[in-house]
Amino acid sequence: MNKEMKIIDVDVHNDLKSHMDLVPYLPEPWKSRVASTGLGLVQHGYWTPVGVVREDCKPPSGGPAASDPDYLVQDLVEGYNMKYVILTSSIIHISSLHDPDYTAAVCSAYNDYLIAEWLPRHKSFKGAILVSTLDPNLAAKEIERLAGHPDIVEVLFSSGARSPLGQRQYHPIYEAAHRHNLPVAIHIGGEGAGGATAPTAAGYPSRYIEWHTNVSQTYMAHLVSMVTEGVFEKFPRLKFVMKEGGIAWLPHLMWRLDKNYKGLRYELPWLKRLPSEYIRDHCFFSTQPIEEPSNPKDLITLFDMIDAENFLLFSSDYPHWDNDVPTEILKRLGSEARQKIFHDNAQRLYRL
Amino acid sequence: MNKEMKIIDVDVHNDLKSHMDLVPYLPEPWKSRVASTGLGLVQHGYWTPVGVVREDCKPPSGGPAASDPDYLVQDLVEGYNMKYVILTSSIIHISSLHDPDYTAAVCSAYNDYLIAEWLPRHKSFKGAILVSTLDPNLAAKEIERLAGHPDIVEVLFSSGARSPLGQRQYHPIYEAAHRHNLPVAIHIGGEGAGGATAPTAAGYPSRYIEWHTNVSQTYMAHLVSMVTEGVFEKFPRLKFVMKEGGIAWLPHLMWRLDKNYKGLRYELPWLKRLPSEYIRDHCFFSTQPIEEPSNPKDLITLFDMIDAENFLLFSSDYPHWDNDVPTEILKRLGSEARQKIFHDNAQRLYRL
Repeated sequence: MNKEMKIIDVDVHNDLKSHMDLVPYLPEPWKSRVASTGLGLVQHGYWTPVGVVREDCKPPSGGPAASDPDYLVQDLVEGYNMKYVILTSSIIHISSLHDPDYTAAVCSAYNDYLIAEWLPRHKSFKGAILVSTLDPNLAAKEIERLAGHPDIVEVLFSSGARSPLGQRQYHPIYEAAHRHNLPVAIHIGGEGAGGATAPTAAGYPSRYIEWHTNVSQTYMAHLVSMVTEGVFEKFPRLKFVMKEGGIAWLPHLMWRLDKNYKGLRYELPWLKRLPSEYIRDHCFFSTQPIEEPSNPKDLITLFDMIDAENFLLFSSDYPHWDNDVPTEILKRLGSEARQKIFHDNAQRLYRL
Repeated sequence: MNKEMKIIDVDVHNDLKSHMDLVPYLPEPWKSRVASTGLGLVQHGYWTPVGVVREDCKPPSGGPAASDPDYLVQDLVEGYNMKYVILTSSIIHISSLHDPDYTAAVCSAYNDYLIAEWLPRHKSFKGAILVSTLDPNLAAKEIERLAGHPDIVEVLFSSGARSPLGQRQYHPIYEAAHRHNLPVAIHIGGEGAGGATAPTAAGYPSRYIEWHTNVSQTYMAHLVSMVTEGVFEKFPRLKFVMKEGGIAWLPHLMWRLDKNYKGLRYELPWLKRLPSEYIRDHCFFSTQPIEEPSNPKDLITLFDMIDAENFLLFSSDYPHWDNDVPTEILKRLGSEARQKIFHDNAQRLYRL
């Protein structure tokens, strides 16, 4: 790739050194709870033999991978000539817990910690307002509180949820994000954990490889929900970013949904265009983990069927086990498409 | 299309004239139950504005569409020059009920009714042994009881289930089918009904268009389960047929699962080949409802990426609302691929 090309990486998982990092930002009774027993985040119960985090990303200063801003700059930002990285945290799956007040308080504490201890540390750092979907009205208040910050560029929550995310109980989140011209992004992790629904459309699989492979289904269901519930008619400037859910299922989904819409549009009188048109105009997808056909050309052919170069956003997923290195993926893209996916689409979306 | 080409249709929904058709074949206490209160099949609760069955398929003799064997022959078999049609019933979603004994008894009664009242009526009729997944040992006994019938060509059950179908509790079904060289087929309908899991990986959507669009996810999860649980290593001649679950998601799934296998194969020491190789060797997919891109050529391009012409089976889904007419779909296929998909693949699979 062109070494001069600047990259925007839309999915970098900054981590806490420990749960104690959030204690100063929490009100009681949550301050005492977290100080004494930790965050209590719930896991999905699938064990991965390769771990979640790359061991070689751990900072020399100690602590978990991506918990040291300076080392993250050195290892990722400077290492790959990145212009901006969007920090997406390591506690997105907070929404798989059960208490709407606690999860909202942890999100607020994390957001204050992000603004105080990460965003000022490097000019490449951009932040997401983390919210819990358990109480969308509290989430909307949190968006209202922080949307004006100059380095905040999106709203972020878990794709692991209690119901498809287009349903009207979630609309306060979209209303607030829309009013502030902030894209909303979802990210995997909480599928099948705690109060979230089963992680596949056939229930609970046996092993992590299934959990990870099937995560795309959660995105498919949320995307169908966002379109058919009319979220993009109700909030016409809203942009929806799907991070880490895969891409190559999109032709199938767009074709099947458009065909069904032609037969069943009576159900959706609020839609004015084909479902795929809403997807093209309102939705963005991060690249990692990129699908890898045995013939790499097939992926590009498939992208061309849906004009994917206009709605893909490069992401590394640093520092996770399966993260993508910008110099190694999508080598067969033409230079114009590369420029869009590695930089221009994100620059436009996030007004950077 | 070539009018001389004979067609094998692998998904034709013969129906009962009424639940009373099964009463003579049921033992007590089920005979009295069904005679007095019907079959009690549970629905998924999504209403379709276009109905499920095409009104114009209703036989002049009265009764529901596809409940008159003679009219089905006239309207479908002779109408489209079909050599064989596989009768798949209208009660497949029996597995979404709760009582393993009752559902097994209804399946046995249906199978006896099929053998007595349908299969002898026309030389094109071939049958599936319907089983309930609620007690796989009872299902295996039913396979054992009927596998020798000359017009029985497969085992059939619902894709709506309580867990991914590769899990070991279901293996008695595969063991029996494998021993008798019968393919096993799954079919949609019970997703989200009764005791089945939620019909999407994000829970219960709001409307039928979502239910119908997302049904492919159930198939994706079952397919990943069948491969990763090692069903095709344990039963090396077993063939698995996915009816009415879509096709165009296959490149995504094969690529993502192969990639994950390369990283996570430690979890699956029983596999000896790439997941996609098991899919190519053991799995078949019926064509209806075929995805319809705005550029029809895209579907063929996508098929070519995965050699789909070797594992697709034509199906009409007669008499349902969205059924596919053989003269209208897949017009851009080459003649060799047409011959395989409309005839040869099914002939070989079902030894017809």
